[in-house]
Order: sequence, then C-alpha cells, then structure tokens
Amino acid sequence: MPSSDQWAVPPADAFADTGLLSPGRAGSAVEEATGDTAYLRGMLDAEAALTRAQAAVGLAPAAAAEAVTAAAAEYGRRGGTAARDLALRARSGGNPVIPLVAELTAAVAERAPDAAPYVHRGATSQDIVDTAAMLVASRALAPVLADLDATAVALADLAARHRDTPMPGRTLAQHAVPTTFGLKAAGWRSLVLDARDRLAAVRAALPAQLGGAAGTLAAFGAYAEADGSRMSDGLAARLTAAYAAETGLAEPVLPWHTLRTPIADLAGALAFAAGALGKLAADVLVLSRTDTAEVAEGRGGGSSAMPHKANPVRATLIAAAARQVPALASVLYASLAAEDERPAGAWHAEWQPLRECLRLTGGAARDAAELVAGLRVNPRRMAENLAAGGGLVVTERLAAVLAAEIGRSRARQALDRVSRRAVEEGIGLERALAEEPAVTDALPAERLRDLADPAAYTGFAGALVDRALARPGGDRGGEHGGEHGGEQNENRNEEGTP
Amino acid sequence: MPSSDQWAVPPADAFADTGLLSPGRAGSAVEEATGDTAYLRGMLDAEAALTRAQAAVGLAPAAAAEAVTAAAAEYGRRGGTAARDLALRARSGGNPVIPLVAELTAAVAERAPDAAPYVHRGATSQDIVDTAAMLVASRALAPVLADLDATAVALADLAARHRDTPMPGRTLAQHAVPTTFGLKAAGWRSLVLDARDRLAAVRAALPAQLGGAAGTLAAFGAYAEADGSRMSDGLAARLTAAYAAETGLAEPVLPWHTLRTPIADLAGALAFAAGALGKLAADVLVLSRTDTAEVAEGRGGGSSAMPHKANPVRATLIAAAARQVPALASVLYASLAAEDERPAGAWHAEWQPLRECLRLTGGAARDAAELVAGLRVNPRRMAENLAAGGGLVVTERLAAVLAAEIGRSRARQALDRVSRRAVEEGIGLERALAEEPAVTDALPAERLRDLADPAAYTGFAGALVDRALARPGGDRGGEHGGEHGGEQNENRNEEGTP
Amino acid sequence: MPSSDQWAVPPADAFADTGLLSPGRAGSAVEEATGDTAYLRGMLDAEAALTRAQAAVGLAPAAAAEAVTAAAAEYGRRGGTAARDLALRARSGGNPVIPLVAELTAAVAERAPDAAPYVHRGATSQDIVDTAAMLVASRALAPVLADLDATAVALADLAARHRDTPMPGRTLAQHAVPTTFGLKAAGWRSLVLDARDRLAAVRAALPAQLGGAAGTLAAFGAYAEADGSRMSDGLAARLTAAYAAETGLAEPVLPWHTLRTPIADLAGALAFAAGALGKLAADVLVLSRTDTAEVAEGRGGGSSAMPHKANPVRATLIAAAARQVPALASVLYASLAAEDERPAGAWHAEWQPLRECLRLTGGAARDAAELVAGLRVNPRRMAENLAAGGGLVVTERLAAVLAAEIGRSRARQALDRVSRRAVEEGIGLERALAEEPAVTDALPAERLRDLADPAAYTGFAGALVDRALARPGGDRGGEHGGEHGGEQNENRNEEGTP
Amino acid sequence: MPSSDQWAVPPADAFADTGLLSPGRAGSAVEEATGDTAYLRGMLDAEAALTRAQAAVGLAPAAAAEAVTAAAAEYGRRGGTAARDLALRARSGGNPVIPLVAELTAAVAERAPDAAPYVHRGATSQDIVDTAAMLVASRALAPVLADLDATAVALADLAARHRDTPMPGRTLAQHAVPTTFGLKAAGWRSLVLDARDRLAAVRAALPAQLGGAAGTLAAFGAYAEADGSRMSDGLAARLTAAYAAETGLAEPVLPWHTLRTPIADLAGALAFAAGALGKLAADVLVLSRTDTAEVAEGRGGGSSAMPHKANPVRATLIAAAARQVPALASVLYASLAAEDERPAGAWHAEWQPLRECLRLTGGAARDAAELVAGLRVNPRRMAENLAAGGGLVVTERLAAVLAAEIGRSRARQALDRVSRRAVEEGIGLERALAEEPAVTDALPAERLRDLADPAAYTGFAGALVDRALARPGGDRGGEHGGEHGGEQNENRNEEGTP
Repeated sequence: MPSSDQWAVPPADAFADTGLLSPGRAGSAVEEATGDTAYLRGMLDAEAALTRAQAAVGLAPAAAAEAVTAAAAEYGRRGGTAARDLALRARSGGNPVIPLVAELTAAVAERAPDAAPYVHRGATSQDIVDTAAMLVASRALAPVLADLDATAVALADLAARHRDTPMPGRTLAQHAVPTTFGLKAAGWRSLVLDARDRLAAVRAALPAQLGGAAGTLAAFGAYAEADGSRMSDGLAARLTAAYAAETGLAEPVLPWHTLRTPIADLAGALAFAAGALGKLAADVLVLSRTDTAEVAEGRGGGSSAMPHKANPVRATLIAAAARQVPALASVLYASLAAEDERPAGAWHAEWQPLRECLRLTGGAARDAAELVAGLRVNPRRMAENLAAGGGLVVTERLAAVLAAEIGRSRARQALDRVSRRAVEEGIGLERALAEEPAVTDALPAERLRDLADPAAYTGFAGALVDRALARPGGDRGGEHGGEHGGEQNENRNEEGTP
Repeated sequence: MPSSDQWAVPPADAFADTGLLSPGRAGSAVEEATGDTAYLRGMLDAEAALTRAQAAVGLAPAAAAEAVTAAAAEYGRRGGTAARDLALRARSGGNPVIPLVAELTAAVAERAPDAAPYVHRGATSQDIVDTAAMLVASRALAPVLADLDATAVALADLAARHRDTPMPGRTLAQHAVPTTFGLKAAGWRSLVLDARDRLAAVRAALPAQLGGAAGTLAAFGAYAEADGSRMSDGLAARLTAAYAAETGLAEPVLPWHTLRTPIADLAGALAFAAGALGKLAADVLVLSRTDTAEVAEGRGGGSSAMPHKANPVRATLIAAAARQVPALASVLYASLAAEDERPAGAWHAEWQPLRECLRLTGGAARDAAELVAGLRVNPRRMAENLAAGGGLVVTERLAAVLAAEIGRSRARQALDRVSRRAVEEGIGLERALAEEPAVTDALPAERLRDLADPAAYTGFAGALVDRALARPGGDRGGEHGGEHGGEQNENRNEEGTP
Repeated sequence: MPSSDQWAVPPADAFADTGLLSPGRAGSAVEEATGDTAYLRGMLDAEAALTRAQAAVGLAPAAAAEAVTAAAAEYGRRGGTAARDLALRARSGGNPVIPLVAELTAAVAERAPDAAPYVHRGATSQDIVDTAAMLVASRALAPVLADLDATAVALADLAARHRDTPMPGRTLAQHAVPTTFGLKAAGWRSLVLDARDRLAAVRAALPAQLGGAAGTLAAFGAYAEADGSRMSDGLAARLTAAYAAETGLAEPVLPWHTLRTPIADLAGALAFAAGALGKLAADVLVLSRTDTAEVAEGRGGGSSAMPHKANPVRATLIAAAARQVPALASVLYASLAAEDERPAGAWHAEWQPLRECLRLTGGAARDAAELVAGLRVNPRRMAENLAAGGGLVVTERLAAVLAAEIGRSRARQALDRVSRRAVEEGIGLERALAEEPAVTDALPAERLRDLADPAAYTGFAGALVDRALARPGGDRGGEHGGEHGGEQNENRNEEGTP
Repeated sequence: MPSSDQWAVPPADAFADTGLLSPGRAGSAVEEATGDTAYLRGMLDAEAALTRAQAAVGLAPAAAAEAVTAAAAEYGRRGGTAARDLALRARSGGNPVIPLVAELTAAVAERAPDAAPYVHRGATSQDIVDTAAMLVASRALAPVLADLDATAVALADLAARHRDTPMPGRTLAQHAVPTTFGLKAAGWRSLVLDARDRLAAVRAALPAQLGGAAGTLAAFGAYAEADGSRMSDGLAARLTAAYAAETGLAEPVLPWHTLRTPIADLAGALAFAAGALGKLAADVLVLSRTDTAEVAEGRGGGSSAMPHKANPVRATLIAAAARQVPALASVLYASLAAEDERPAGAWHAEWQPLRECLRLTGGAARDAAELVAGLRVNPRRMAENLAAGGGLVVTERLAAVLAAEIGRSRARQALDRVSRRAVEEGIGLERALAEEPAVTDALPAERLRDLADPAAYTGFAGALVDRALARPGGDRGGEHGGEHGGEQNENRNEEGTP
C-alpha cells in the first residue's frame, strides 16, 4: 500500500485547499470573495448588522450596537486562523455560528460588558449563516458580472469585425453550409448577456435572513416583552427591514429558512452562466484543434515535454467548470425539498456546493474575459477549410437555383453526380460542376462560379449579427459599480478587498 | 438466468411506456400533452406554420400553405402508429424529422403535387424538433400552471384558517419553539407562487426556432434567389416573425440551435417547481408520520396486506418527482455547452430529459393540487405534541423574561435545573417551574402559567401569515386561459385536447 | 398561447412513449425488454414464483401454484392494455401491484376458486415490484452484454489490423506525439471489457426480493401458524431460497426493501458502461470531423437539406446517452438514503431512472456494435494530418537525441529556432531542420530524416496493443447466450448483428 | 450592494478553504489526507518514483534517483506555501505539474547538477497528477475503511443486543407491522460492509499512471535511443512495472489517460458508501424526531438559543454528505467520455469532485463511527410507540389466523369493524377485539391477547439478524491498519474511536 513515509512532520496547514486542484479560480477575485475568511466576515457582518438593527428599532442600546460592530471588525481581522478554529469547533453543533457567538460575546464583553448580552440576541444560527452566504454571493458576483461585461464587449467587437468573415458552419461534426465568424461571436455574446442578466437579477434580490429559532421571530418579541415594550405585529417587519438595510441585502417577505428560493435562483443562474461560457469554450476547443486551427488562444498554455504545443488552456478550464456546475446546482435544487423549520441535511448540503458554483462560474468568467480579449482569429484558415470541403457546403444553394431552371428531380440527380465525383475523384466542386452538362447547359459559367463560392453563401449571417448587436450589453457604465476596464478594477477593489 | 418462457408471443406494443412506472403522471393532462403523439403534432404544426410563414412573406403560394396545413392535420390523426413508425425510421439520421418530411411530402403530393416542394423548404430538422419542443412545453405548462394556481388558492385558505393554530416548530428533527400551521401553509404557498411566476415567465418567452442548415437562414435566400426575388436583409427577420406568429411562440432574436437559453430556462424553472412542491411534500410526510399525525392526506393510499394503513401517497409521489427533476435538469444545463452550429450529442441528450422534467413536475403539480385540496389538519394532535415535549419549547421565552428579572446568568442556571428535571423526572415544565424557587420568587404563578403556554409563544407567526397572504396569487382569473376550478378544466380541455 | 386546434380527436394512445425522442433505443432488444409489458410480466412472474415457492415449502397447495402460474401467464398476454389500466389504477396506492393483485386474484378465482387466497399471500407490493425490476434488468442486460461482446470482438480486430497505423496523438485539442490507431482501438476495447465485466458481475448477483409488509417475513409465519404449522426460524430461509430459485434470481441474505445495494450496483455499472461507450463515441466524433476525417461511420446519417453530409449518427446517439446516464445514476445512488422499512419517495424515484439507464446504455451498446462493425478507417488521411503539423509531433524525440549529442541546452535552443521557422514560415520541420547548422552538424542527414518521420515515432504503441489484446474478452462464445436462452440469443443476432 | 468596508486589510490566506463550510470533515484524517499538501506530496512521490523506476531499468543513474527523491522530500516539507505558489502558477498551463517540475529541477540542480535532466524525464503532466490522485485516494481510504470497520463492529453489537427488541416497522411514513431494532441495525451493517467491500476492492486496484506525452511511452524509447540503448518492446512493460512498484500502486495494463476506469470505480464506490451511510443517517433522523424518540445520538449537538435541544448532528452531517456525493460522482462518470489522448476539460473536471467525494464520504464514515458508538436506544419508547398505534400493526396476523377459523371474507369484515372502532373511538385494538363477537367466538381470550401483542409479531426478524451477522466483517483486526502503517492506524484510533 502506498505510504508517504519520507515526510516526517505533517505541515500545520495540511488540511487546507488553496487552489492546487482548481487552476480555473486560483488567484481570482471570486476566489478571495468566497474563501473561509470571506464567509467569516459575512457572519460577523450579519451579527453586527443584527445588533444595529435592534438598536434601530429600540430593542438594544446604540452603544451595544457600536461595541458589537467594533468587536466583529476586530475579530474578523484574525482571518484564516479564526476560521479554522471555528471549523473544528463547528463539529459539535453542526455549524460555525455557535462557537463564533461564544468568541464574539467574549470579545464584546472585554470592550463593553453591558453589550455582551446583545450579541446574537434573538437570532438562530441559520439567520447568520444564510445572511453570510447572501453577502458572500453578492460580493462574489460583482467581479463575475464585471468579467461577463468585459467578455460581452470584446465579443461585440469580434462580431462586428468578423461580421462577414466566412467559415464553415458545422453540424454533427461535419461541414454544413457556410456561416460567418461574426455570427458565431454574436451568438456567444447573446449567451453571455443572458447569463449576465440572470445573475444580475438574482443578485439584486438576494435577501437577508432573519427568523429566529423556528422562523417566527418569537425571541425578539420575548425580549421586547422582557424589556417591558409592548409587542406589536409591526415590530417584526420593522426589525427585518432594519436588518436588511444594515446588511445591504433585500428585505425578505418571510423568513426563508426552508423556503430556499434565493439558493435555487442562484443555482439556476450560476448553472446557466457556466453553461453559457461552456458553449464559447466548446467552440474554441473545436475550432482550435490542430486540424482546424481557425482560432487560437492568444497565449496558449505550454507543455514541458512538447515545445511546439500551444494549448487552449482558458477554454479547457472553462469547459471543466461547465461540466461541474450543473451537478452542483442539482444538489442545490434538490435541497429545496427541506423538511420542517430547519432540515437535517438539506441545508448543510447547500454550503459547499453553492461556494463551488460561485467559484467555478467566477473562474470561468475570468477565463472567458481573458480568452476573448486575446483570441486570435484566422480568416485565411477558415477560407482554406471551406475550400477543402470541395465546395460541397454550397450544394444546398445550387440545388435551389438549379431546380428553378431544370426541375427539382433533374437538379437533384445532377448534383448527386457532381457531389460524388467531387469527393470520390477529389476534383473539387467547381470542376465537377463544369464537367456536368445538365448544369452547364442551365447556368452560365460566371453565374456558376458565383453560386459555387462558399464565401458568397453566408445567408443572412450579417443581418443576424446586426440584429444581435442591437441588444445593448456589456458596456453599460457603472451598473455593477463601475465600467469594466479601469473602473472594473476599481469595482473589484471595492468588492474584493474589503 | 431468469427467463420468461411462458410468454409465447411478444405483444405488438411491448416497447411502449404507458405510465406503469410513473403513477405520478399517469392519466394527467401533462402526460397527454407530452406523449409521442403530442410531439408528432408539434412537429407537424411547425412544418405547417413554416409553409404558411413562407406564404406570408411571398416565398410560397398560399395554396401550398393550405395544402401542407391540411395534410399535416390529417397525418397527425394517425397518432401513435405514425409516431412509432417515425421513431424506428429516426435511427438512420438520428432524428424523426427526416422520415416525417418524407411522409408529409408524399401526403401533400397526393393532395396537391405543386405544393410538395414547399414542404420543409429551407428548414433544417432542428428547426422542426425545437419548435415542436417549445409547442409541447407551452401546451404542457398550461395545466401545470393551473394546478399550481389551484394549489396556491387552497394553501391561502389553509394559511388563513390556521393563522393561529399552534404546532411545534421543528429544527434538525427536534421540537424547537412553537410555530403555527398557518405560517407553514403560507410558506408553502409562497414557494408555489415563486414556482408559478418562474414557469409563467419562461413560458411566455418560449421562442420558435428557425435557422436553416447552419443557423444563417441561407436556404430561404437561395430559394428567393431561385425565384428571382431580390434578397434583402429584412427577409430573414420578416420570415422569422411570420413563423413565430403562425406557431404562437415568441420571436427569437437569433436562431438558437446552439444558444440554448430556452431549454436551460425551462430546466431551471421546472427544477424549481419540482423542488418547491417537494418542500410541501417533505413537510406532509414528516407531519403525517404515525408518531406525529398532525396532518393526513384526505384519502390516503391503501395497502392490500395492511388494512389499517392510509399512506401519504400524493406526498410520496411528489417527493419522488423532486428527487428526479434536479438531476434531469442538470443534463439540460450541461447541454448548454454545445459545440458548432449543431452539436453531436448535447442536443439529442435534451429531448427525453426535458419531457421527463415536464411530466414529473406536471404530475407533482397535479398531486399537490389534490393533496392540498384534501389535506386534513389535526390541531388537537398539534397541541398534544406541543405539550408532550414537556413545554420545553418555551424555554427561550422564559430565559428572556427571567433574565430581565434576576439577571442572565442566574436565569440560565435556574432554567437548566428546570429543564433537566422536566425531562429526566418526566414531570413536565410547568411543575418543574413551580418547584424552582429562583423562578417562583421572580414571577407570579399566573404570569408563569402564561409564559409556559406553548400556544402563547408563536411569536409573529400571525403577522407573517398576513404579510405573506398580501402577495396576490393563484386566483388571478384567466391568466393561463381560465381560472382554476371549473375554468381550469376548461383550460385543460383547451390545451390538452387539441 | 400556442394551441393545436386543427386536431379534432385525441388519439387513444396519446399518453404513450414509443421512442420518438429516443432513436438511440428505438427498435432495440433492450427497449422491448424494458417496456411496460416487460415490467408487467416481471410482476406476474414474481407473483407466480411466490406461489410456487410457498407450495415448495408447504405453505400452499401445488394446485394453487399451478393455477396462479397459469392465470399469470394468461393475464400477461393482455400486454399493453393491461399495463395502461394498471398504470392508471396505480395512482391511488402509489404502485401498480395493488390493482394487479386484484386482477390476478379475480383471474385465478375464475379458474380455481380455492387458489385465489394464495395470490400475493404474505407478500408486500415492494416484493413484487423489486423482483420484477431485477427480472427486467437481468433480461435486458442479456442483449446489452452480447452487444458489448460483439463490440469488443470487432475492436480487437481493428486494434490488431491497425496495430502500427500511425496517426496524430492529440492532447488538449492539439497534436502531441504520434500514436497508432491500433492503440486507440485497444483502449476502447479495454473500456468495453471493463464495462462488460462490471455489468456481468452485477447481473449475476441480482437478487429476488421477499420481505413481506416490513421486511420481517412475518405474514408467512402468520399463515403457517394459521395453518397449524410449527413456525421455525428456518422457514423464512427456505421460503426465500425457493422463491429465488423459482425466479432464477440470486438469493438475498436479507430483504432489501431499504438496503438498495442491487440498485446502486446497477447504477454504477450502467453509468460505467455508458461512459465507456461515450469515450469511443467522443473519439469517433472528433476523428470524423470534416477537417480531420480520419474515420467515418460505415453508413453515416443523411440530411434532407444537405445531400453531401454523412453524419456520425451512431456516435452522436451514444454521446447523447453518455450525457444522460450519469445524472440518472445519481438519482439511484441518492435513493440509497431511504428512511424506514419502505421510504416515501426514494423507492418510487428509482423506477423510471433505472429503466432509462438500462435503455440508454442498451441502446448505446447496440449503436456501438453497429458503429464498430462498420467503422471506416482512413490511414492515408492520418498520415496527411501527421504531416500537416509540419512534423512538430516529433520534437520530443529530436530533443532527446540531439541533447545527447550537443547538450540539453543547446539542443533546446536549436529546436526552438527550428520549430518557430517551421510554423511561422510554413516550411515544415524537415526543411527547417536541414537549414539549422547546430542540427546538421550533429546528425547526418539520413539519421535526421528517420528522426523526423512521425510514423517512426509511435513509441511502444505496438507493444501496448499486444499487451491489451492478451486480455481475453468478447468472443467467449455463448457466455450470455447460454444463460438467457436460445430464443433471446436469436433475437440478439437479429438486432445487434445487422 | 453589500460591502464589507470595515475590514481594512485582506488577510494573506483569504483564498483558503479550511473546512468552515464542511463540519463533516473538519479535523478528520481524511481531510488531511486530501489537502493540497497531500496532493503536492503525491506529485512529488510520483516524480521521485519515476526517477527510481528509470534507474531500476537502466534509463537513469541510481545517484540521480537518490538526488531527486531527496530533493522531492525536502521540497514537500514546504507544504501549503509551495502548494499555493504552484496553484497560482498552474493557471498558464492548466495544471500544477509544469511549475512543479521547474521547482523540483532547480532543487535537484542545487544538490546534484547531473541529476537535474532526469527530473520528469519522459513523463507528461498527467502521469504525475493521476498517480498523485491515486496515491491520495489510497491513503485517504485507509482511515475511511477503518471507520467503516469500526462502524460495522458497533452495529454488529447493536444488532445482537437488540435482536428481539420490538419496534414499529414503518413504511411510507406509517406504522406497518412490528420489526426489531436488531434487524434494523443488522441491515445498516450489511450496507456498511457492502460499502467497505466495494471501497477495499477499488483501492486494491488503484493503478499508477505512466504514458508519456500521448500514452505511447515514446519518450522513454527516445531517451533509451539517445543513450544508445537498444529499444525493446519489453522496456515499456518493465518500466511501468518498476514505477508501479515504487509508488506502491497497481500496475496498469495500458496508460489510462483517457481510459478512466479507476476514477469511475472510485466514483461508484464512494457514492455507494456515502449512500449506505446515508441510509443509517436517514433512519436515525426519523427515529430521533421528538415525536418518536426511539433513538438519540449519544451527545447531540447543542443550540445557543434553545438549551433543551439535543440535535442529531452526526446524522445530519452524514445526510448532507449523502446528498452531495451522488452528484459529484455523476461528474466523474461523465468524464469517462474523454476525447483524444488527453481531453480538454473532462480530465480537469475530475480533480476537485474526486477530492470532495473522498472528503465527504470520509467525513461521513467518521461521523457514522462516532454516531454508532454513542447511539442511545430507547426500547421503552419503541414499545410505547407500538402500543400507541392502537395495536393495528398486528391486523395482518389476526387476519391470517382468523381467516383460518371463520373464512377469509368474514374475517376481513370483522377486522374492518374492529380497526375502525379501535381508531375512531380511540379504544385500542385489544378492547375492540374483545367486543367483536365474530372474533371472540372464534378465538379464546388468551390466544387473542397473544395475537394482539405487537411484540410477539416480529416474524423472522431474529432469524434474519442471525443470518446477517453470520457475514464476517468489521473486526478483522488490522486488515487496513497493516496495510497503511502503524502510524496511520494510531492516528485512526485517535480520530475515529473517540
């Protein structure tokens, strides 16, 4: 059995994932925005917001809110060490909030003993974990949206530039009729915009979570009662509104401990985005195959053994993400079926898959932005490949025109002969046509040459590009906190370097 | 090895699925709307609409459109026999349109020889299969939406009626604090409305498909050219608009042969809906367990062996659907990553999973409507279960109030003693409280009795119910072609009996 | 909303699936072996076997066993009509056994009134449904295994014939170093044999199911008691053994109502097989791309619009299956987590996915057998593609040999220059080498020519082929045929060896 | 948009996962065995083994092998820092081996410049990554198997002790007929043993990976050629055998770069194991519900808000794992369909899901061992719950016995009356029986009392327990311990036997 005896001492951080198996997201803004530290901060933000919200509606003194907020900020700076400590202590209760509350309460007590009882008061662990997940998702999606915007802008440029660049359209792995590279790029862009729209809509609706032990917010009433306040039905609504405002998240209609619409909506939008980018990657991969070579990644990945290789690495990593996210999203959809007021398993099964969906999709969006920015398009090779098919891609057109001249049935027979000779004798379509009397009798040589030109049979590709580009998208200044480009970086700094 | 020798003759229909393994959808409107016959009709509708659209923009004579439409209708009446025949002949080309076009062309030729060349002219198989899938999805969703509406209406009624019916809130399989059955029903309703909204939005946007061989619509130009028409860029747009209008589907911006937004959106909305209903089912299943018995299906399923059983069959079948749809949806999301102008596999992998998603979700919606309409709620049992917990569900409230009287730490110690005695000695909370001096010194007996009453500690459940019910939904007359109830049936007739 | 008004009368079989969306399995032996009729027969076989087993251990008269067996055979001949009737009546109890027992009891009563009470006596619905599923799986796997065997035999032939046929090895979509087509075929075969081994092992262990209402077999004891027999602990074991023997299935150690090892094992083996065939399909798809054209399906699928196309349809349908089965298998694995003695949903969620896994994998096996039998290999094109890469596929070898002559670092620099010129100036490797003094000084021209020949750098491909072919498999005459009976074998030949 | 402004400085390790969202595996042996550091070590082990293997067959000097082995060991001690560095640098080539080889070569060059060229010589990145993954899997499975063994041993004890402890059998959420807790525990054990057997078999076959750039091992031949050695077909086999021996893994027949049997087999066995433990968890969750309370986790998880709660946390975390692993396994199965000699995406998509499957299953195995070791069983409560059903669980038995006395039809009618009264009037079965003349006339009171005793109607549960326990398993002293070394075993005891 394989052992690893030569390693004397297990390193202190042997348990950690730092991206070694995930080059798709390593070093990305979304990686940092979804690390354990980011979740820790999300939980601390939630705890602090909760105290401030209670202060806002008269359930806690302002000083307590200040003390908790300050202590949370300070505790958060412990970062990864604190996160690992909580991870280990989370085992006994099944989630990290129980040990976190103990730590935070102690930290507050040191600062302001009177404030300590207000830590986590009235809340349940799930209020904190869910709110943290929403904060993490919202923050992580900022760079994702910016990368999608940047990708869309670059694709609009590619589509416009190559509006009329002919290339083989391919169906079921075979050359079909010609298309243009611009139409392909316009199609990619439309999917990227669809992804961006779906993610942006979901992000705008991500709600704070507040329900207390079983979703009735009862404890807040109990504390109000204990403080001698009069309970009113409006208290819950006011508290929830204040809490949402303090977190910056949307206000929920109901506590959603087991009404997991936000999680499912994230699952769907992320699976969509990963798949949309996966289409782009799938096309880049087939078009950059050595035998096709119509596109190439700007700076392909190298190989130690084979110096001549320039691998489509960005597309590969996107494709890898697109294979994983749908399955992870299926776990999230399945967790909708959560029993009771808090399920035993379905909720816990969401945590890591949601993070992975964010990371994989975010990594894919970064890779797509890089890929598209540097994509090298080879129109010459496209033309060669079109020609290499012996011109057969235009038989559809010839059939239509010839049928109008000599009838459908005779036209078909003539073209069958022509196709067979072009392929079997390897003489190419143009010559085979020129040697077929049924054809040459019907159509003058010049007309025939035009009809046999693949580049002249791209149909309405150009018009479709124009139509697709009429859809605005990508460069809509500042929607996600700044344009892509310079502002995008600013945006990222804002979001990812809190 | 098990053989089945006694069966002499294989029956003619041995290959067919007729619902034996799918009681969830057997006999439902959605089943009929998604059978092979429904797909066949969708394909024929698409072919007929295509010819009419070409007539509308001057690419075909009106008489041809009429002939094709009539022949398609007649051919469609062959139903299952024709479908099976096409299924077998689909093998050689990989899809059923190739043999269908041959059959339809022959049928048209019999009627009107001049019209025959216009059958399928300019289109590709995927135009027909995709349009048919959208038609099937649209038609199949009508009864699904109606069932969701009916479910929402019944749940609104349950939520209102049981707004203040106390029951144990349960988290991680344990009694937590009390909640009300009304809040639970209101939560179910909010998920059902979320599902309805998502499905309705997706359905309204389902587009027709028209792209020709490789998505450039080039053949239509070739035929225009052959006819001597002047090609104009606007032709493609006009033709697509006419085709969409003839099918009743939305007009696409681009051909979407490999831009699978509509399929992915259906996947997401269906997985959401199945999961939303799965939550309802999960709750009904735990609440109807013999040991809990707080709810029961109106007419539980029997058992041949055990006459005393009344199984929660509707909830069981919904739960079974909720376990399948997310995985099937993941196949659809994964198919977004489709290479080229038509992929070799990703497209074909969508067909059956999309149908199954429609069927499972539609069956679950029917079961949910039936379940909710007949659900028996047992408030007495809810009260007994609350009491059986020894009143421990109210310790949270007691802790809050007592802490205000005697300090947090002393309150906690006192309640720990009380809880322990209540459970370990089995004397119940009320008596344990009455025998704890730290408590009785601080709070008068009457106050204590109130505080220990689980039914009085449902927090803001009532207010939350009111808030949730303020969201309109379910009974919005005629949106899907008639209200639920009588009109729902009408609606179904309209949709399902074409 | 799209309607379909022109269809006057809904056909009687509108609900049925007959393969229109499943060309992969349409018309296959596995399709018939998994249809509703096949399940109906499986259930009837189980009921009949149960009565015979009880007779064998003295719990029922032999005459009753005969009557039930005869009535079951007769009822089974009703085929699809009976299946649909049961499907509809299954809704009330959630499974088709309850109505089936009623029908069968009535049929027996007509023949032999005294035998009627012995129908289903002591059993639970799940005993019958699970045993039927095992019978169906076992029967359906017979043609699947035969198709895998046929595929392996054909691949062994291809591997041997093309043991030394050079072609570009490709990694990350790029030409890497040369390989041989024989090694590729040998690799496909090894996966097919792995799939066959896994399926055959699982099939041999498929157990009968017998547990009674809650898996204690108590009712059989109750009937023994009622009959005045002495209950003995051995009765359960003897009865189970007799039942297994009557069904032809393996004898289970425990009733496995919620110990779903057989289902999970089927899931794994079927997902493996679909994936193994998916590898073959993935390779055929990339190699048959028009730009590569190294292989072609013997009889590619046609296209109505594009007469020149010959689509890789078999590979496409296999690829579509390989995309679906893993997700369906995940549903089956998830159903392992089944609560209680019979779960409310997890069990029901297995039925259709298991059938789909069988069908998709079985269809893929048939397609693979057809594909491999007719695969056309184009060694000339392989050589051209190797050459088209400018010979860069051999830089690895050159680097090794040159380093031994002039040192690693100088060799690398020289080859970098050579590679750059070969690609950028398009002059090909051989000429670029000939013009590089650092190379020509070190190696004589003849040696250089040998080293630069891609066909001479296939490494140990031939030896690996020999090694792989030493594994027996595929042609082990009648291994499955002997088991599943002459008639099925005949059937198989008809289907799978076209 | 929610920001997190109060955090001034991003911590250095913000990107890391350290288990905060994964309490199921936090702190476990499997977590450490699958961290980035463990993968780094696996890759270094693979590189060192490769050089030693080349030395063993004469392709490298022994001194080079020693130098590389020593340098790898030293480099490995850098742990997480090195792993993160490689993760970031992996982006350009898509995998971490390219930068690792650069680092390792530099480290070797410092020690022994002549040895440097032998680092990674002849190999491809995938050889190293795949071998590392097999090493990690093999090492990680050691504690998993040990935990499964421990679980099986504890379950055998529970099954034996509670062989005859009656409890309600439950089907579709309803009391059915009685069973025993021993039979339930024996069933759990049989699944655990099935899981152990499958994992152990897969683990024993995990192969080393060695194929070179495109799976032909050509480079090794090129180096042999450059060194002037005579190439022989046997060289590849000898080298592969030596490499496998040095790694401690099995010897592959073929390079398996795109023949992913080992990965798929791991996927299946891990999904099986997670599901098998998920069954145990599902049962513990329903049985420990407050309203049922037949079992309880030894030390349930606490709640900050609700001091009375003792949550089934171990079962919850197992259930969460069982929901995730099947979907992750589906990604691995889908990756079987990998094109070419190394796929662009399918391979990369395996890395993280395989790790997650190992971690989730390993964490679940630890939790199961802890859960079972501490499970508290409450036979009294089981008896009460049996009785609370009004004795209806024995109607099956009564029906059988009574039918023998007064005929099937009269017996049924009598029992229907009895059941109805027992439930509707709440008088219990025994009294209802006593008041039904058709019953009392047929059976003496004493017999009736016996027949109505649920505890006396557990059927063959005891015999089935005996039969199940006859299967050896779990306590086979040191089977895995012996393999994976004393230190891991010690470690295991520390972790898994708390």
